[in-house]
Amino acid sequence: MSEIILHNYYRSSTSYRVRIALEMKGIKYRYVSHHLRLGEHLEPAYLAVNPQGLVPALIWSDGALLTQSLAIMEFLDEIQPQPPLLPPDAQGRARVRMLSQMIACDIHPVNNLRILTALRTLYGAGDEDVANWFRHWVNETFQPLEKILAESSDTGKFCHGDSPGLADICLVAQVANNARFNLNMVPYPVISRISAECLTLPAFIKAAPANQPDAE
Amino acid sequence: MSEIILHNYYRSSTSYRVRIALEMKGIKYRYVSHHLRLGEHLEPAYLAVNPQGLVPALIWSDGALLTQSLAIMEFLDEIQPQPPLLPPDAQGRARVRMLSQMIACDIHPVNNLRILTALRTLYGAGDEDVANWFRHWVNETFQPLEKILAESSDTGKFCHGDSPGLADICLVAQVANNARFNLNMVPYPVISRISAECLTLPAFIKAAPANQPDAE
Repeated sequence: MSEIILHNYYRSSTSYRVRIALEMKGIKYRYVSHHLRLGEHLEPAYLAVNPQGLVPALIWSDGALLTQSLAIMEFLDEIQPQPPLLPPDAQGRARVRMLSQMIACDIHPVNNLRILTALRTLYGAGDEDVANWFRHWVNETFQPLEKILAESSDTGKFCHGDSPGLADICLVAQVANNARFNLNMVPYPVISRISAECLTLPAFIKAAPANQPDAE
Repeated sequence: MSEIILHNYYRSSTSYRVRIALEMKGIKYRYVSHHLRLGEHLEPAYLAVNPQGLVPALIWSDGALLTQSLAIMEFLDEIQPQPPLLPPDAQGRARVRMLSQMIACDIHPVNNLRILTALRTLYGAGDEDVANWFRHWVNETFQPLEKILAESSDTGKFCHGDSPGLADICLVAQVANNARFNLNMVPYPVISRISAECLTLPAFIKAAPANQPDAE
């Protein structure tokens, strides 16, 4: 058994998710930064660790490679169940995974750096085009997400009840990304309230992009 | 308790995933089709059911709305554990979820109909541009996926061991989509072998796009 390593980047929102989960679980790890804009994640030394060349990647204490932020967080929740990231009942877990995946599948993948770069390269998209693309896909999902959160009695202080979990982690990381593209959050009072609530908690504060060693 | 309803579309690969899981679990459901190319998923009657206006959506027997294919499949696995979609150990589950999410987060979202339509509308992309975009993002992930599957002793007849599970479901649905865009599968012998193996199983056959009532 050796140390746990997180390959990540301060501003990567999927990295931010995993950092929050590690902090919530009280799991110590070594922080290894890969500067995405400089392409450090595509260097041969990192591809030898993670063939997909993406962050985050967690190297567990036995050397196993774990990638994909939701898979990593579910793993952490299984090996260290307290505090739980998912509710105890199957329908509650389905709801929290649904809310998480609305962000992790329907927003983030179409708005991450490699897609925005492809729009610039292939179609000559400029800064404003890229920002419009980003905001469009966030709004497409945030509108129903806000409605689902606002109308359900399962929503509490956080996305599901009164304890933070998987969906709140995804939410906070997305809201942080939105700020970089000046997304108007006024139509999203419930999302904004939950995000603000999360940001008062030590795990979320410690994991925040601005508080990482590679923050610029 | 009333019937279980699956809102879906024969050619939607995320719908295909859920159909496979329902068949594997032996859960009966009513098939409700929404023709995506005709925009039927955006009609007010469906938005009242699922505010996100996407398929698949599963209406459980108590009326609860479940969306997001991975969340739905994990739910089905929890309420009907046999045959399991995930292995018994935490690291095995993390690996299967990782493989699933490589497809469900890194390929499908950037290649689905709404994104391809946006490329046409915003940037005047033509059929060949759209096909190139699709193939590019599949190859970006299929290359490391093939490598991970080929090099790991955890890979068996299927993605993880000798029973089909969550990752195989995602794999088969993606490979079916690839065929529509003439993706060259020669560089992917392990993925091709696993996909072919799955397609001999009754659950996968019953759930296949061509075997649905709305198939064209």
